[in-house]
Amino acid sequence: MLNIRYEKTATPKELPAKNDPLKFGTIFTDHMFVMDYETVKGWHDARIIPYQPISLDPSAMVFHYGQEMFEGLKAYKTEDGRVLLFRPNKNIERANNTNRRICIPEIPEEDFLQAIKEVVKTDEAWIPTKPGTSLYIRPFIIATDPFLGVRPSDTYKFIIILSPVGAYYPEGLDPVKIWIEDEYVRAVKGGIGEAKTGANYVASLKSQVKAHEEGYSQVLWLDGVNRKYIEEVGAMNIFFKIDGKIVTPVLNGSILPGVTRDSVICLCKEWGLPVEERKIDIAEIKKAYEDGTLEEVFGSGTAAVISPVGQLRWEDTIMQVRDGGIGEYSQKLYDTITGIQLGKEKDILGWTVEV
Amino acid sequence: MLNIRYEKTATPKELPAKNDPLKFGTIFTDHMFVMDYETVKGWHDARIIPYQPISLDPSAMVFHYGQEMFEGLKAYKTEDGRVLLFRPNKNIERANNTNRRICIPEIPEEDFLQAIKEVVKTDEAWIPTKPGTSLYIRPFIIATDPFLGVRPSDTYKFIIILSPVGAYYPEGLDPVKIWIEDEYVRAVKGGIGEAKTGANYVASLKSQVKAHEEGYSQVLWLDGVNRKYIEEVGAMNIFFKIDGKIVTPVLNGSILPGVTRDSVICLCKEWGLPVEERKIDIAEIKKAYEDGTLEEVFGSGTAAVISPVGQLRWEDTIMQVRDGGIGEYSQKLYDTITGIQLGKEKDILGWTVEV
Ligand SMILES: Cc1ncc(COP(=O)(O)O)c(C=O)c1O
Ligand SMILES: Cc1ncc(COP(=O)(O)O)c(C=O)c1O
Repeated sequence: MLNIRYEKTATPKELPAKNDPLKFGTIFTDHMFVMDYETVKGWHDARIIPYQPISLDPSAMVFHYGQEMFEGLKAYKTEDGRVLLFRPNKNIERANNTNRRICIPEIPEEDFLQAIKEVVKTDEAWIPTKPGTSLYIRPFIIATDPFLGVRPSDTYKFIIILSPVGAYYPEGLDPVKIWIEDEYVRAVKGGIGEAKTGANYVASLKSQVKAHEEGYSQVLWLDGVNRKYIEEVGAMNIFFKIDGKIVTPVLNGSILPGVTRDSVICLCKEWGLPVEERKIDIAEIKKAYEDGTLEEVFGSGTAAVISPVGQLRWEDTIMQVRDGGIGEYSQKLYDTITGIQLGKEKDILGWTVEV
Repeated sequence: MLNIRYEKTATPKELPAKNDPLKFGTIFTDHMFVMDYETVKGWHDARIIPYQPISLDPSAMVFHYGQEMFEGLKAYKTEDGRVLLFRPNKNIERANNTNRRICIPEIPEEDFLQAIKEVVKTDEAWIPTKPGTSLYIRPFIIATDPFLGVRPSDTYKFIIILSPVGAYYPEGLDPVKIWIEDEYVRAVKGGIGEAKTGANYVASLKSQVKAHEEGYSQVLWLDGVNRKYIEEVGAMNIFFKIDGKIVTPVLNGSILPGVTRDSVICLCKEWGLPVEERKIDIAEIKKAYEDGTLEEVFGSGTAAVISPVGQLRWEDTIMQVRDGGIGEYSQKLYDTITGIQLGKEKDILGWTVEV
């Protein structure tokens, strides 16, 4: 149990208007959770304080050597006023996997959950209720030693900030266009692709900018070794429905094990749909497209939940999926998952955690 | 030409003692250079101010998505009191290559050089003169948009800090032991391995910790695709002298194009030694070791200049190079390069730039 110290803001900000559709990740609530780490003391001084700038020495290791991790999950307000988190333990488990991979000290799971709950409770009034909106929770850890030289830091800050958000893609649930990258690589087996750390995102920027310029909203990565097996999208895992089966790349160490990915797989299995987690050659997708057996393509991620894919572009081939319309399962998964998140659907798999 | 605003410190720190051997990267001088970027204004507000903390919003992109770059070079004080930079234009060129790769706006080369010169001049008194010491210069850029979501930032800070340093490896010019990594991968073709950005260093931590625990000071990386071609060491490029020839991995997109590497190649060519930049299979090194034709192994980098390698460990094979002694060329290259840096040797290749 953390002994959390509270310092409430003396100058609360104005809440966004009730009917504000909200953008993604631009406004932040009144408070933040902070906890420090030092080798001798371990994690200590847990506190909830007014949202405020972080002050660091210019030599702080996070600015130079990228030792930083983050997570992303959401809180929802139900119609009867309860606050629900969606599978927070999956994020916490993944956070500690990231920590181990990049030499950041782990955070006890129960302390992590307590910190999330307490800061969400503190800023509960900020949870938006308009359909499609939620409170995005961003826990992150940064290395703070004032030291130049490559080694793990001895000091860290663990911080949780909160942002009321709307749709991640301006398209909302409308299908997005995806560019399959054949020049750049995001991550490779043996690397840190399965960790949620800045490194994987900075590596994606150039390709993403190129895709945007061509009118595509996201990039789909191929593996770094053979350059033909499908990995994942910029900020989502990817699913295909081929000839009645749900197919998704197997977790191979270079892609992020998405919480939404896992939820999609569980639900499809519940519904009796065959699900295959395996290597997928991009040529197989092209063939399925040509055969007419490529029935649906969609991405899964906390930010957009389910994002139908209307078009895939690979080299010179443009694959128009379902004439650009939303697939049956994309819609059903979106409705079911958001239904559970909002407490409207029965939570048969025990995914929500009340704050 | 930058119009630099000056704000001198009112509380100068105490200089390290003249005979202090100095560690690496732990103390910083009195001032720093800072310049901001905004889309509309471009790079602006160049200033030299007292060394001080940086204050950033907790949502600043650098903390989450790793959009950060850095460089490292050194200034030396000659016996007759001049201040010399070693090939700063190579670092500046590489900085802009990194910037392009990770979508950071470039900095005009002449402005970059002016900034380095001015801040070094401001803290000239901090340049140590004990043999083996120098003033390490760390330019870096961080993404500062207060925004959650993956895209290039619209705002940045370019900062230069200075640190009087001694040897990077506690061993000094004594040969180091190197662990050849066969499990983890640092970077892959198509990725960002040739950029000087935090991502490549965070990816190296776990392997480095493991190597340290086994008594090795650095890791030598193999390529991420075939897992057998030699890439580079944690913070150095690597050279082999095999049967009278100098051999080093060719710049293939996944290793850092070191300034010291280039200097070593130029000098060896000057001296009439055959130099080969090419793919090197680790099995070739093992064979040369067994044949007795592996004459020298050394690393090259700004921090340590030349670092003789006394032992290489690959899987179960321990290769003892030259019975752990310093090689002839390792010593000659170290003496020549540091001689030029300190203004003691004739600068035949026009490498030094006076401040
Ligand atoms: C690279 C990447 N893949 C996949 C995902 C989806 O993971 P999750 O469903 O846990 O949000 C995300 C984002 O969260 C991501 O950044
Ligand atoms: C990964 C890596 N390779 C090589 C080098 C050597 O480059 P340079 O000689 O420019 O210092 C460095 C360090 O600077 C480095 O970090």
